[in-house]
Amino acid sequence: MLKPLGDRILVKVDEEKEQTVGGIVLANNAKEKPQTGEVVAIGTGERTPDGKDIPMTIKKGDKVIYDKYAGSEVKYDGQDYLVMHEKDVMAIVE
Amino acid sequence: MLKPLGDRILVKVDEEKEQTVGGIVLANNAKEKPQTGEVVAIGTGERTPDGKDIPMTIKKGDKVIYDKYAGSEVKYDGQDYLVMHEKDVMAIVE
Amino acid sequence: MLKPLGDRILVKVDEEKEQTVGGIVLANNAKEKPQTGEVVAIGTGERTPDGKDIPMTIKKGDKVIYDKYAGSEVKYDGQDYLVMHEKDVMAIVE
Amino acid sequence: MLKPLGDRILVKVDEEKEQTVGGIVLANNAKEKPQTGEVVAIGTGERTPDGKDIPMTIKKGDKVIYDKYAGSEVKYDGQDYLVMHEKDVMAIVE
Amino acid sequence: MLKPLGDRILVKVDEEKEQTVGGIVLANNAKEKPQTGEVVAIGTGERTPDGKDIPMTIKKGDKVIYDKYAGSEVKYDGQDYLVMHEKDVMAIVE
Amino acid sequence: MLKPLGDRILVKVDEEKEQTVGGIVLANNAKEKPQTGEVVAIGTGERTPDGKDIPMTIKKGDKVIYDKYAGSEVKYDGQDYLVMHEKDVMAIVE
Amino acid sequence: MLKPLGDRILVKVDEEKEQTVGGIVLANNAKEKPQTGEVVAIGTGERTPDGKDIPMTIKKGDKVIYDKYAGSEVKYDGQDYLVMHEKDVMAIVE
Repeated sequence: MLKPLGDRILVKVDEEKEQTVGGIVLANNAKEKPQTGEVVAIGTGERTPDGKDIPMTIKKGDKVIYDKYAGSEVKYDGQDYLVMHEKDVMAIVE
Repeated sequence: MLKPLGDRILVKVDEEKEQTVGGIVLANNAKEKPQTGEVVAIGTGERTPDGKDIPMTIKKGDKVIYDKYAGSEVKYDGQDYLVMHEKDVMAIVE
Repeated sequence: MLKPLGDRILVKVDEEKEQTVGGIVLANNAKEKPQTGEVVAIGTGERTPDGKDIPMTIKKGDKVIYDKYAGSEVKYDGQDYLVMHEKDVMAIVE
Repeated sequence: MLKPLGDRILVKVDEEKEQTVGGIVLANNAKEKPQTGEVVAIGTGERTPDGKDIPMTIKKGDKVIYDKYAGSEVKYDGQDYLVMHEKDVMAIVE
Repeated sequence: MLKPLGDRILVKVDEEKEQTVGGIVLANNAKEKPQTGEVVAIGTGERTPDGKDIPMTIKKGDKVIYDKYAGSEVKYDGQDYLVMHEKDVMAIVE
Repeated sequence: MLKPLGDRILVKVDEEKEQTVGGIVLANNAKEKPQTGEVVAIGTGERTPDGKDIPMTIKKGDKVIYDKYAGSEVKYDGQDYLVMHEKDVMAIVE
Repeated sequence: MLKPLGDRILVKVDEEKEQTVGGIVLANNAKEKPQTGEVVAIGTGERTPDGKDIPMTIKKGDKVIYDKYAGSEVKYDGQDYLVMHEKDVMAIVE
């Protein structure tokens, strides 16, 4: 299992729904939309100069919308993930 | 529903009134004006190093004027929103 | 009415006096001078990490000189305003 | 009168002595020297996050040497001034 | 032995598995993947303005995933290492 | 006399020894060496947000080595000086 | 003697071992390796806003590995040194 460090979260990216017109798969739009995924692991929070960890707002299982350039891609056990900082998440989908 | 994170707010952008001259729709001006919208959801405030959240100034329902490059576009349930930081709002319309 | 957020102020820009020579309106100088205006509304002050607002120095009614690139233009009720941060004001005219 | 804001000072720039050779006025050197002037007004000091103002070191009447790119030009009552931050002053001439 | 300073860690980089097709070694992909390694030494933590060291989260022996541009290469006793800051580690593999 | 402000020092730059070969003055090397000088005046120290001045480490009379791009040139009473921040001094020559 | 200021250290750079093949001196590799040296003098530590000096971690006599672009070259008594900040040292060789 991957355990994100600090204020990082591990996101399983939602699968891209293919846009089709009459069965024909369309090319992606040049200007991509912000993306969504599910949080599968969270860090212990950012460590402050006092040596304490600021509690995370995001919980495991949250559905999140993040900015389209957020995070670094990580491949683990044949699955693609994004590791990003909590502050890169724009909103939680409830 | 979308729940903005930290000091972010979710803004339903006001519809652009078409500028017409004798019924002819005019092209937009190259230098766009600052924009307005209604706040439909707010975050819990910026989390400080002490782990506390700074209370938000903006409330749900506020009409806001924001800088023209503020925020990231988010599409949700067929409606366009902007997610921006509270500090990107210039003024509240009362 | 517009209510500036944080440490912002709303400035009604002084009207530009046309420079004339024998009745001929002269083109503006390429290197513009710093500008002046009257403060018509102020924010509640910058919010600190403690959640307190730093009191504003500038008051409603002050005549201010601001740097020529300060602020963002806002149109409201057919009148042009500038919204700027208090720190962009160089001096008060007394 | 102009009242500088925060940690700003208002400087009446010393007149440039023309460099002459046998009565011929010489063009200014491309690489200008640091400049000097007299402080005619000071602000109340930089406001800290606690809402207090840090006392100014420079006093009204001080002769100062400032870096050649410091400050913004302000014209007031037909006289040219520079408004600059106290930290842009390199030394006081005693 | 190498003793990393401050919040640095010393990482023994995992050996690159050659990608082969029918025994032919393939050239590396232009876009490299994030990399992994084992932590062989850690610093005493970042020193704060109070003169205290913030405890490290990463321990000797941890398997880490780090960003592909993290760290500086160090050769010691014929072995290649990476020295990086703890914050450059994205996740621990458990 | 010049009195440096804040954490600044006034340095009388050591005279450049001409490099000669058989009496011929050599052109300066394109890549200049770090330079040295004597401290002839010091400021009262950097003013902190508390309004206190951090004591200076450098004393009047110290011989210092500073980085080759440090400081601003000041001419005073026909003598060339450098005004620089204390942190631009690399070492004291004892 | 040179006495480094603040959190600086003075490093006597290890002599470069010439890489030879059959007695022929080889040109240096374009991509240089991180370098090593011995610490011959240390500063009193970084001065904090409280006016205290943060104790140094590195001691006189330490063998250090530093990043290849760290420090400024200083020539003193015919010997080449590097003056660098303590944080530019990656690891101590024990």
